[in-house]
Amino acid sequence: MASSESKIEPTLTTLLNVRRGAEAIDFYTRAFGATTLSRIDAPDGSVVAQLSTGGGIFWVADESPAHQNFSPEHLGGSTMRMILITDDPHAAFDRAIAAGASSISPVKDESYGWRIGRVVDPFGHHWEIGKPLAGH
Amino acid sequence: MASSESKIEPTLTTLLNVRRGAEAIDFYTRAFGATTLSRIDAPDGSVVAQLSTGGGIFWVADESPAHQNFSPEHLGGSTMRMILITDDPHAAFDRAIAAGASSISPVKDESYGWRIGRVVDPFGHHWEIGKPLAGH
Repeated sequence: MASSESKIEPTLTTLLNVRRGAEAIDFYTRAFGATTLSRIDAPDGSVVAQLSTGGGIFWVADESPAHQNFSPEHLGGSTMRMILITDDPHAAFDRAIAAGASSISPVKDESYGWRIGRVVDPFGHHWEIGKPLAGH
Repeated sequence: MASSESKIEPTLTTLLNVRRGAEAIDFYTRAFGATTLSRIDAPDGSVVAQLSTGGGIFWVADESPAHQNFSPEHLGGSTMRMILITDDPHAAFDRAIAAGASSISPVKDESYGWRIGRVVDPFGHHWEIGKPLAGH
């Protein structure tokens, strides 16, 4: 291994494609209490940012259809769900709604052992907000 | 807090919507060395599974368009990218290609300080495979 390389730990994160990236970062800050770990603003107004919430990291970037980076608004739906586990799903859900997310299903105790709800954010990404219940 | 509840740590994970979920789990096992942490097979053949790779967790589930869970094949593109950080991006990239992924861009050292490449898997999800280089 060359001296310019350092051993790194493996990680797995997700980059969300959006329209109006700067607005999205603001939304995720208000909705999920996200903090911005890094951010690059391009001259054309597009952004790429690394955010942290819920003890995890995710990325947000303006879409670039020419590079196969499509936003949910572009495709008319989302191909994944973010799952945010939090000790107080009701509070986290309400905060997301207050910030501008729309409810898909309110937080309730499901038969499979989770207290969980689901929202779609203003940029078309879906978030499940919940936690496993004891005994499951 | 009721006695049936336990304090849990916040986490953030991603659930990938796919067609042919059982095949997808097999692919992610071969392509990324994923291990299956939990798996539920429904009578209709659909699956939901929690996988682990690269020190992280992700979920895979068969799509359900009626519930706004769309696969990339359904929408004709993906709304996010998974970012897999690994100490040997070339080896991880080659393993994914050998398992059936298609190259979008081969692993190379980028000016922004990452050794990184990109593939699309047979289910339409995009993966960036790389690591930050020392000094960045």
